[in-house]
Amino acid sequence: MSVRIAVVGASGYTGGELLRILATHREAEVVMATSREYKGKPITHIHPHLRGFYPNLRFTEASVEKMLESDLVFLSLPAGVSKNYVPQLLESGVKVIDLGPDYRLRNPEDYERWYGWSHPHPDLLAKSVYGMPELHREEIKGARLVASPGCNSTAAILALVPAVESRLIDLEHVAVDVKVGSSEAGRKPTQGTHHPERANVMRPYEASGHRHVAEIEQELSAIAGRELRVAFVPHAVGAIRGALATAHTWLTEDDERRIMKAYVSRYGKEPFVRIVRGPPVGYPDPKYVVGSNFADVGFAVERRIGRAAFMAAIDNLMKGAAGQAVQCFNLVMGFDETEGLRFPPLKPA
Amino acid sequence: MSVRIAVVGASGYTGGELLRILATHREAEVVMATSREYKGKPITHIHPHLRGFYPNLRFTEASVEKMLESDLVFLSLPAGVSKNYVPQLLESGVKVIDLGPDYRLRNPEDYERWYGWSHPHPDLLAKSVYGMPELHREEIKGARLVASPGCNSTAAILALVPAVESRLIDLEHVAVDVKVGSSEAGRKPTQGTHHPERANVMRPYEASGHRHVAEIEQELSAIAGRELRVAFVPHAVGAIRGALATAHTWLTEDDERRIMKAYVSRYGKEPFVRIVRGPPVGYPDPKYVVGSNFADVGFAVERRIGRAAFMAAIDNLMKGAAGQAVQCFNLVMGFDETEGLRFPPLKPA
Amino acid sequence: MSVRIAVVGASGYTGGELLRILATHREAEVVMATSREYKGKPITHIHPHLRGFYPNLRFTEASVEKMLESDLVFLSLPAGVSKNYVPQLLESGVKVIDLGPDYRLRNPEDYERWYGWSHPHPDLLAKSVYGMPELHREEIKGARLVASPGCNSTAAILALVPAVESRLIDLEHVAVDVKVGSSEAGRKPTQGTHHPERANVMRPYEASGHRHVAEIEQELSAIAGRELRVAFVPHAVGAIRGALATAHTWLTEDDERRIMKAYVSRYGKEPFVRIVRGPPVGYPDPKYVVGSNFADVGFAVERRIGRAAFMAAIDNLMKGAAGQAVQCFNLVMGFDETEGLRFPPLKPA
Amino acid sequence: MSVRIAVVGASGYTGGELLRILATHREAEVVMATSREYKGKPITHIHPHLRGFYPNLRFTEASVEKMLESDLVFLSLPAGVSKNYVPQLLESGVKVIDLGPDYRLRNPEDYERWYGWSHPHPDLLAKSVYGMPELHREEIKGARLVASPGCNSTAAILALVPAVESRLIDLEHVAVDVKVGSSEAGRKPTQGTHHPERANVMRPYEASGHRHVAEIEQELSAIAGRELRVAFVPHAVGAIRGALATAHTWLTEDDERRIMKAYVSRYGKEPFVRIVRGPPVGYPDPKYVVGSNFADVGFAVERRIGRAAFMAAIDNLMKGAAGQAVQCFNLVMGFDETEGLRFPPLKPA
Repeated sequence: MSVRIAVVGASGYTGGELLRILATHREAEVVMATSREYKGKPITHIHPHLRGFYPNLRFTEASVEKMLESDLVFLSLPAGVSKNYVPQLLESGVKVIDLGPDYRLRNPEDYERWYGWSHPHPDLLAKSVYGMPELHREEIKGARLVASPGCNSTAAILALVPAVESRLIDLEHVAVDVKVGSSEAGRKPTQGTHHPERANVMRPYEASGHRHVAEIEQELSAIAGRELRVAFVPHAVGAIRGALATAHTWLTEDDERRIMKAYVSRYGKEPFVRIVRGPPVGYPDPKYVVGSNFADVGFAVERRIGRAAFMAAIDNLMKGAAGQAVQCFNLVMGFDETEGLRFPPLKPA
Repeated sequence: MSVRIAVVGASGYTGGELLRILATHREAEVVMATSREYKGKPITHIHPHLRGFYPNLRFTEASVEKMLESDLVFLSLPAGVSKNYVPQLLESGVKVIDLGPDYRLRNPEDYERWYGWSHPHPDLLAKSVYGMPELHREEIKGARLVASPGCNSTAAILALVPAVESRLIDLEHVAVDVKVGSSEAGRKPTQGTHHPERANVMRPYEASGHRHVAEIEQELSAIAGRELRVAFVPHAVGAIRGALATAHTWLTEDDERRIMKAYVSRYGKEPFVRIVRGPPVGYPDPKYVVGSNFADVGFAVERRIGRAAFMAAIDNLMKGAAGQAVQCFNLVMGFDETEGLRFPPLKPA
Repeated sequence: MSVRIAVVGASGYTGGELLRILATHREAEVVMATSREYKGKPITHIHPHLRGFYPNLRFTEASVEKMLESDLVFLSLPAGVSKNYVPQLLESGVKVIDLGPDYRLRNPEDYERWYGWSHPHPDLLAKSVYGMPELHREEIKGARLVASPGCNSTAAILALVPAVESRLIDLEHVAVDVKVGSSEAGRKPTQGTHHPERANVMRPYEASGHRHVAEIEQELSAIAGRELRVAFVPHAVGAIRGALATAHTWLTEDDERRIMKAYVSRYGKEPFVRIVRGPPVGYPDPKYVVGSNFADVGFAVERRIGRAAFMAAIDNLMKGAAGQAVQCFNLVMGFDETEGLRFPPLKPA
Repeated sequence: MSVRIAVVGASGYTGGELLRILATHREAEVVMATSREYKGKPITHIHPHLRGFYPNLRFTEASVEKMLESDLVFLSLPAGVSKNYVPQLLESGVKVIDLGPDYRLRNPEDYERWYGWSHPHPDLLAKSVYGMPELHREEIKGARLVASPGCNSTAAILALVPAVESRLIDLEHVAVDVKVGSSEAGRKPTQGTHHPERANVMRPYEASGHRHVAEIEQELSAIAGRELRVAFVPHAVGAIRGALATAHTWLTEDDERRIMKAYVSRYGKEPFVRIVRGPPVGYPDPKYVVGSNFADVGFAVERRIGRAAFMAAIDNLMKGAAGQAVQCFNLVMGFDETEGLRFPPLKPA
């Protein structure tokens, strides 16, 4: 029997992507898709690509009572909104995969520092699992609340984990430069996402400290076994999908084989991480993971000055959002981890 | 037991798309992928998105002897090349889905007129089936040789069939304006497909008579029961995937409901044709079928001057090439027609 | 001494383009730039590319009193707004170049039919000159009110004028298929212009009758000397700038040289119309006029079925808006017609 | 009387851009445009946007004898080719602006290290001036040989000069992450620049050490007064024009005002450098300089961890190539430095 799923915040891009994936997932049945703005409308009103799928599904309002009729809820909501639903859902035995940031940080003070509000349920932070299977697979398996990370964090962390873990880089000087496609900003039109303004940009933003740094530092510090600070600058670039993290680092030891070994050791058995070594394509590029849950990782070493660049490329809506959430869902429910996610990327696209 | 498949011409975009689809097709096993240029290289050399799929598949040369080890061959080759392989394959009992034009035209003289060579096997033209399931489903089912049409023809024909069939338009004045993405021109770099030259274009090409008109007129004439001539101008526009046909016509009868009825009657039960009637999205747009085998069709009537525009939107590499070929493959083999093709389009992309 | 110019509606794309052109125009001084939304802000708030130009210019509110301090006003406003300002400006001796539709149609009833309101100053329609120098140069020279046309109309009319004028086509069956870039929809973000939604589209819109058909038919009918009806379907395609009109027609006489003669006769001496005959580039493409005031025109004849496609390519913000308006301005003021507009297009872009 | 100009390598994008600029330059007359591949063809064969300009100019072969008929030669050639022409031109009194790398490095050994050949005229390296007016204006004024830098170097150097000069950053840890548009790779089609492959990429390349690092380190070391090493990773992103350098650094002193002061002191009077401080647009973006010779510079400080990002945005074909070369030309000839370059950027584009 299928798991009954509610997708809360279903009119956004991540919500739409959850619906796209779940349409072919053999263990899931979407029983609810919420949208305040479009309640009453068929989901194809906003997701015309899904014509012919979910023929009877209409957006409803996000009421907790209705959510309780499902077995598991995906929350795809703006920062600060999930926390209004999660406690009641958990109490009622409904499992939660939260795609927002409300339960990603373990230290309650970090919410004040980075988000400007104090967390109303600090106890739940200890129970929430950071939903990156490559780091927390076993914990996710038994979890009732998974905080599934977004694209900036996923790309930055996946790029750096092997290097941090194997102590091959100077942890005092790590600069992560991220490039993202326009879908990262969500479905709501703004001046900055208007096509004539957004196309062809190479636009740095939140360059003085981006909220997602909090989780990147949290996860990498845990791996390093010490506090680690990351310089982080995201850039909007000319694409709809994709996120690339390029981490600029200086090596403590100039041994390319050890780096490769650290990658293989960490990612060799991961179902959705692919290590890229050219030729012909030398480095990861989100272009080759579009539409899929894969993360392509790789690196470059410049011996002349003892430095290395570590890269991770993902589809921001997939491994950077909905795909990773479904991967966590599979783990939580005890399904094959790749169920619903086995399709290749789309290229050229 | 799986059908053993050879993909001949596997380094092109259509070949890559066949490999992408067949990777999740439950009845197919790709045993051979040919490429003269890249023989000996792993397929990921050219298709890096397929890393992790087909781990042992390398390009080989296209030898007929090797092809005979397969049950069915997809030929994805330039015009004029398939005909070198087809007779021998058929004689040996290997089924063929040809994605090129060599067996699409029924009248051998049309090859001289449009392609400039005389067809060496005119007898086979009578045995070949034009691979558009919406028109020739029953014939395809028993076929040994299917000539699967390309994107211009598929879009133009699907847009016009209901109107032509129901005699609602003036058949003397039909102008089809097509827009296509850059992948339509194939994987080979040219001056015209160089990114700085190709991005942002609105470029008419072959505006004095495009080869594909031959098949469009052939199929529509058969439906009309009389000779029909089509004015046809394709345009390269700024996208990688997608083909949109807008057929400008004048109505013999101004009855929008009859048009709708003709559409529903023709396409209502088609698994891959979706009739678009807004709001919110009023007309077909390839944007909403990217990566999938769907064709979205629709129309607009201007009563003031008794005219209508009929539109069809497809992904040129899917319903306009590889997807349609796999749909035909399913019919030929007696599988569920939608096997391997049930996934939704990718959006936003 | 420079002409004192007011740009009313200066925060839009057309307004920004006027400011860009006038920055190097040797006879103009911009003394006023209005924007209700951004009044008080420096113009670089919305036009950051203009940093360093107009260092002291700030947006002000659009008050007629203030406009009277200028010699000439460019009105770049939504349909229906210009008519609130024009009568008073003219009475006070201020010349007006209106880039909106309020004074383009000669027949007052057309405003009711196409725009849904009755024109408050039908007398002024007779005094207004349709601002296409290729058709009305002499009238523009003495005009006090010029109604400068937009991109759809300019492209469609320029494509068809020689063919209509020389009676070479069947006037009963003319279908104009237009492709436009995203800047055509203006600076205001909407769901349809949001980058992830707008990029890569091939989207028909207003396919049942677009307002601009009114002026296209008005101007072409005047040239034909009889009523002429045009089937017209615009399409949004993947570019920021550019408009291409492809007019599908059937020939009354199949004589390509006569067509060419008609083009040369009409456009041979036009400073901003370039006749395109390949190779290497066979047909007009807006790609080659980006940023400039040029219109590239050309055609294709298919003798087989006696039809021709006539094409015109423009930059929608230049020859389709601000550039043409400045060309009219030069004529009105008696300046060299090309002043401020002599720079080549930008390519690749 | 105009300066007679030869553009050698005129069929490339930089050559085309030189022709575009010089078309409106009041002191220059282009008497020669060379292209081996297209000799004999009119320049519009390759540069169709220039139709109507240079009506009689055809490509010729690059013979030194012919070049000697000009007063000044722009050399826009692949690495290693300029050095075949330069000595003879200088001897004959013809001035040279070289847009390639052959005369940019002062240390002859650097050519062996970075380019793999030994320089045949090491004496000329001492006479050549690095063509960045912001650093070497006075030397350029009297120069006979100017080595005009390319886009990576220009963006990286302009971003970092004030910080390096004012000793505000840790010089041991400087990582420059560059994003560039597709025109940077030139006019020759390759697999990597084919539109379906190039569109939407976020592609790191030459990440283990790019040749242009040599000049970046040369110029910044001269300013620092000590050897300085730069980690440098360029990325191809989805645009035709534009280059953005984001330099990730750690501060020795956390004083944002001192940084701003260093910027104003260095760039306040530069005709083509604009310091960007938001709102509304917070950081430099090549989007706002497209088509122009401007460099927009800016920075972001994150006090929490004492780091700063320094950015510079240019049009790679203008301030990163042809525009800068013309700026040098003006200085060499004693013209107003901004002649031919005063036009604003094109936006939206």
